[in-house]
Amino acid sequence: MQAISHYQGLVSAHFNSLLFEKEPKNLYEPIQYIISLGGKRLRPVLTLMATEVFDTDCKKALAAATAVEVFHNFSLIHDDIMDDAPLRRGNETVHEKWNINTGILSGDAMLILAYQYFEEYEPKIFRELAQLFSKTALEVCEGQQYDVDFETRDDVTIPEYLKMIEYKTAVLVGASMKMGAIVAETNEENKNFIYDFGLNLGLAFQLQDDYLDAFGNPETFGKQVGGDIIENKKTYLYLKALEFATPSQKEQLLHLFSIQPNDNTDKINSVKLLFNETGASAATQKAIVDFTLLAFETLEKMDIEPSKKEMLKSFGEKLMSRKV
Amino acid sequence: MQAISHYQGLVSAHFNSLLFEKEPKNLYEPIQYIISLGGKRLRPVLTLMATEVFDTDCKKALAAATAVEVFHNFSLIHDDIMDDAPLRRGNETVHEKWNINTGILSGDAMLILAYQYFEEYEPKIFRELAQLFSKTALEVCEGQQYDVDFETRDDVTIPEYLKMIEYKTAVLVGASMKMGAIVAETNEENKNFIYDFGLNLGLAFQLQDDYLDAFGNPETFGKQVGGDIIENKKTYLYLKALEFATPSQKEQLLHLFSIQPNDNTDKINSVKLLFNETGASAATQKAIVDFTLLAFETLEKMDIEPSKKEMLKSFGEKLMSRKV
Repeated sequence: MQAISHYQGLVSAHFNSLLFEKEPKNLYEPIQYIISLGGKRLRPVLTLMATEVFDTDCKKALAAATAVEVFHNFSLIHDDIMDDAPLRRGNETVHEKWNINTGILSGDAMLILAYQYFEEYEPKIFRELAQLFSKTALEVCEGQQYDVDFETRDDVTIPEYLKMIEYKTAVLVGASMKMGAIVAETNEENKNFIYDFGLNLGLAFQLQDDYLDAFGNPETFGKQVGGDIIENKKTYLYLKALEFATPSQKEQLLHLFSIQPNDNTDKINSVKLLFNETGASAATQKAIVDFTLLAFETLEKMDIEPSKKEMLKSFGEKLMSRKV
Repeated sequence: MQAISHYQGLVSAHFNSLLFEKEPKNLYEPIQYIISLGGKRLRPVLTLMATEVFDTDCKKALAAATAVEVFHNFSLIHDDIMDDAPLRRGNETVHEKWNINTGILSGDAMLILAYQYFEEYEPKIFRELAQLFSKTALEVCEGQQYDVDFETRDDVTIPEYLKMIEYKTAVLVGASMKMGAIVAETNEENKNFIYDFGLNLGLAFQLQDDYLDAFGNPETFGKQVGGDIIENKKTYLYLKALEFATPSQKEQLLHLFSIQPNDNTDKINSVKLLFNETGASAATQKAIVDFTLLAFETLEKMDIEPSKKEMLKSFGEKLMSRKV
């Protein structure tokens, strides 16, 4: 079994070798741009890892891993338009660097390109991969729609929020791993176990993202720290803070989430203080641990070598303690 | 062999039975809306026809036909955003009725849904359909990008324009027919012949669309007559008019295509007069006939029953003489 860095190296080398230099330039340049911005490449690394967990050369999964990462970047381009986000991975978003129409169309092309990567596989595996991919991609759209809907709702519950992040983020993490299992042609039970492992890890990952958006280090986080607070986003932190708040804390928080000051420094600091004082920060960190442990429990059920369980566990622990 | 109206009835009944009533409502309602606006359903009818041309029950092709039409409607939603179009089939466009973000996301979901319809087929056929679909869908995106690029270029040539409409429109017509051939499991030669038939018919169809955009009947056309002229679009009519124009006609046309008056009535009438006087209208009608005849030539090469050739020919003739 290889170290995680081995898979990261493989994925990184593979993405550096991908070329999107076709015509028309205005369609493919933005694709090359967003792909070259890098990012953690979490999903393709998980696809490769999952393949080797089931005793198959991970290079066989490079095409599926590419599909997953290209799809993820498609969703970032379209989400950034919808969220009017100026920055992605510390750089201009596609619609900022070009324009909204370019973001729409280059994104569309990436969604199609993602499917094309599966063409490397023979019909049976192709069908299984594409079917899982379509189901997952549709759920990601549904998750994004729930996210948009929540902006104008005042009665979002924690279970609704968890369903939203499950669809928007976690299902793709689960699918990334299941694709590795499909390429490895393991049994259905293993495919579903590794999906559940990825799903729970994905939930932990997204809650960590929410946490870091407020409490991350501005030097290293990539995105604007406090971005969710500026946009009055109903994250897990916010919903838990409302749940735990005293009447006066609740009043303060609702007020802070109703204003849009020119300078957000005070607002961000006051909200973060409330997140800490109400116990929402601690509850979020506990939820991150809980979902990670749930992922590890699924791992225990799987009939694979102990060294492979250890590697997946170590990856989960690394994610849980990440700072970026 | 059935009459064309038979296939139209089947497609129409099938689309009326499709339900997009899933949650979240804000994602699926716009899909139901655009699908329920109807339209000519040209592409799915061609898929069904092609299946029976190769002696297979056209009902087997309903899922593939649905994929093609859902994809076509996806592209309309996204194109309408890019073109800032207020009307589609005489009704509000999706981004007008809802908003741009809804148009982006519901469109994305439709692109994925299109792939899901292929899941009705066994792996070998699924792979062949999805592969043709991806290639075609990507070409449609490329065609749309060329169309956008042409807006800010003054040196678009007729061959470039024809390549653009081939990608943006004709390849999907060709692919619609080839999908019927794939479902019918005919030989590769037949698949390619029917693709070429559709491609040339698609070119004729788009040139007819250009023509009707200027010279169609406002009562029945659905879209705004003169829309291309208002937007200074470099259509085949315009490019041919420039080619044939006397120096003074050319000056007039360039001037008319540089202004954006509040009331476009005079501009539209003057441009249409120039299209007629230069011979551009006649040249466009000739090109429509030429591409239709090219399609009919491909038909001659195919080893199918005469009655089937007749039906395909009659469909082509109907398209060529359409007024809407």
